[in-house]
Amino acid sequence: MDVYKASLKLHQDYRGKWAMESKVPIDTKDDLSLAYTPGVAQPCLEIAEDPANVYKYTSKWNTVAVISDGSAALGLGNIGGMASLPIMEGKCVLFKRFADIDAVPIVLDTQDVDAIVETAANIAPSFGGINLEDISAPRCFEVEQKLQERVNIPVFHDDQHGTAIVVLAAVINSCKVTGKSISDIKVAISGAGAAGTAIARMLISAGVSDVINSDINGMIYQGREDLDPAGQALAEITNKEGLKGGLADAMKGADVFIGVSVKGLVSQDMVKSMADKAVVLTMANPEPEIQPDQAKEAGAYIVGTGRSDHPNQVNNLLAFPGVFRGALDARASRVTEKMKLAAAGAIADSVPAGQLSADKILPSILDEGIEANVAKAVAAAWEQESEKESIRR
Amino acid sequence: MDVYKASLKLHQDYRGKWAMESKVPIDTKDDLSLAYTPGVAQPCLEIAEDPANVYKYTSKWNTVAVISDGSAALGLGNIGGMASLPIMEGKCVLFKRFADIDAVPIVLDTQDVDAIVETAANIAPSFGGINLEDISAPRCFEVEQKLQERVNIPVFHDDQHGTAIVVLAAVINSCKVTGKSISDIKVAISGAGAAGTAIARMLISAGVSDVINSDINGMIYQGREDLDPAGQALAEITNKEGLKGGLADAMKGADVFIGVSVKGLVSQDMVKSMADKAVVLTMANPEPEIQPDQAKEAGAYIVGTGRSDHPNQVNNLLAFPGVFRGALDARASRVTEKMKLAAAGAIADSVPAGQLSADKILPSILDEGIEANVAKAVAAAWEQESEKESIRR
Repeated sequence: MDVYKASLKLHQDYRGKWAMESKVPIDTKDDLSLAYTPGVAQPCLEIAEDPANVYKYTSKWNTVAVISDGSAALGLGNIGGMASLPIMEGKCVLFKRFADIDAVPIVLDTQDVDAIVETAANIAPSFGGINLEDISAPRCFEVEQKLQERVNIPVFHDDQHGTAIVVLAAVINSCKVTGKSISDIKVAISGAGAAGTAIARMLISAGVSDVINSDINGMIYQGREDLDPAGQALAEITNKEGLKGGLADAMKGADVFIGVSVKGLVSQDMVKSMADKAVVLTMANPEPEIQPDQAKEAGAYIVGTGRSDHPNQVNNLLAFPGVFRGALDARASRVTEKMKLAAAGAIADSVPAGQLSADKILPSILDEGIEANVAKAVAAAWEQESEKESIRR
Repeated sequence: MDVYKASLKLHQDYRGKWAMESKVPIDTKDDLSLAYTPGVAQPCLEIAEDPANVYKYTSKWNTVAVISDGSAALGLGNIGGMASLPIMEGKCVLFKRFADIDAVPIVLDTQDVDAIVETAANIAPSFGGINLEDISAPRCFEVEQKLQERVNIPVFHDDQHGTAIVVLAAVINSCKVTGKSISDIKVAISGAGAAGTAIARMLISAGVSDVINSDINGMIYQGREDLDPAGQALAEITNKEGLKGGLADAMKGADVFIGVSVKGLVSQDMVKSMADKAVVLTMANPEPEIQPDQAKEAGAYIVGTGRSDHPNQVNNLLAFPGVFRGALDARASRVTEKMKLAAAGAIADSVPAGQLSADKILPSILDEGIEANVAKAVAAAWEQESEKESIRR
């Protein structure tokens, strides 16, 4: 039975992947009078008096809403909110399994940016954080920014930042293996959507100075006339020399290739044109830009993919459980750039120096302790920043 | 320790009353590829092809969103959405405990009718039903009606219909005990808000012909100038003789008094003015319109309250778990009048004839089997109606 048939059977057998669990006993009338009326009036009044008490008397401290409009579902495209519910349920059970977070799938009956923001902001009081998922670019940028301005709980679009964090961790460890300095490398990114844009920004935050994104029309550069505002903003911080041309041109002499686009875009010749000890992270879903064995054959020193059946799996699962665990533990009101950098550093550090190699630049998603390391680093980064802010005030 | 202190301690000890539970194993890479990517693409595609499949492959079939803006929280008034979260969490654990339904608390950051409707409709694809809770009248009527027009899952405002169903069950069994016919009784209701209005409508549906609601300004009658549209609509179907005057006038000769207003409104003289074998259901929260022992002393034959420390507790918990269980099982697209009548009948029938007495007109909320009886009756009522509808077409 192939994985698709087996998955369908699993979904039908369990009829949904999540359930709700009551933490309190309800067996007697006394139980009822404490968990519900009349006793429940007391925690309500305490929260009405001081809203911070909601973290003390309710489950808010540990909950995340996984919100999607299904406009960019996996490799399936725009299938709409309801059809993407199995993905969101999956995400929620991963939150539970890897970070003991109580996540709830919220799939939407709208794909309008302002309606998404309004809806998510209106339901935010129930939750400790919001994970946006599978919302298409460039709408996702606007949704995330507007929503974060409206709510005082962390908003995190995993397709952007989760991916960017894990890619940065892979690049950091690749540099350790190749002996190159992160500030010296030249990076070619195939893709300028949600993931490609976030990866470029994250690498630049981490000190990479030479990043060029390409999309279907070639390299992104300032003044390219077909760019939308998100593309223009990306052009302003990347491709410093304003190069024009295709992906093949961008990859010439590049130390790192990062593919978050579509299958088959990269030839062996393109890999051969890269710098010495080239790193190829080919993550198009479900089929990569170039098959990993072909990339290796063409001389790539380190090859990573999004797949679990190859070495160096670049998988968001390394990041999002720990990012949210840390943000919730620190009761952060947002996920800052420094928290994301800290998460990438913690993932990179999770591979002990002695185990680091061209075939082992990232920990396995099933390794114990990754989430805790990431959470600790993320919480510490928030605390450091908020301390500085309170000193500044 | 009083119930309020004990409740606060419970809420702090458990730090929230609900958690999320994963139903599927996630221990190996194979597990991941079935519950999440790439396998999860298959159920998504099946739902995209036929939306009805969402009931087959996700948890939607068993989920209810408990939605509130906290504008009429218990007896606390308008404390806002977030402060009412402990109540909504309590409601959710009752759903789990009494009907094995996976309910999620959604408290809102808005109290605008259209924003509530919009928000609830936008998140509806995740859920099998919507329980509206603690939304103040007359806004609750508009929210419920507009929302039900927007979504194809059942919407049920428990403060209205849950209360009305249980009151009707109490009235049905009171008539059995007093030997009166339900079509002959005269009913005086104190309160014309969410509960008072719904109770009047429900009793009329069940065949009661003489119902008069009173509010703070006295009896509701056609043409009373201070009535809002909801009050005018109520006046059109109640108080057939167009009587004017106060609650005391309405209660003269009444067979049944139903109090869903505030404490102390009813005197012993008012009870004495009622018909022979008078029924007094005095349910103001937390203190009743008249203390039950005083009502008894004044000659009331049957007395019921909202409290668990007196006989004849009129409690929504007898209704809402079974109503939603039945509606979800039948995959009803709404909760019809007939389904509510069926629920009231099933609750009434849950007290065996031999046990029925003036002190036992309702089953106990902790009796086993109530929810199943109600669910069966509600599902059967839906199936009968939808069958008729399909024959008519």
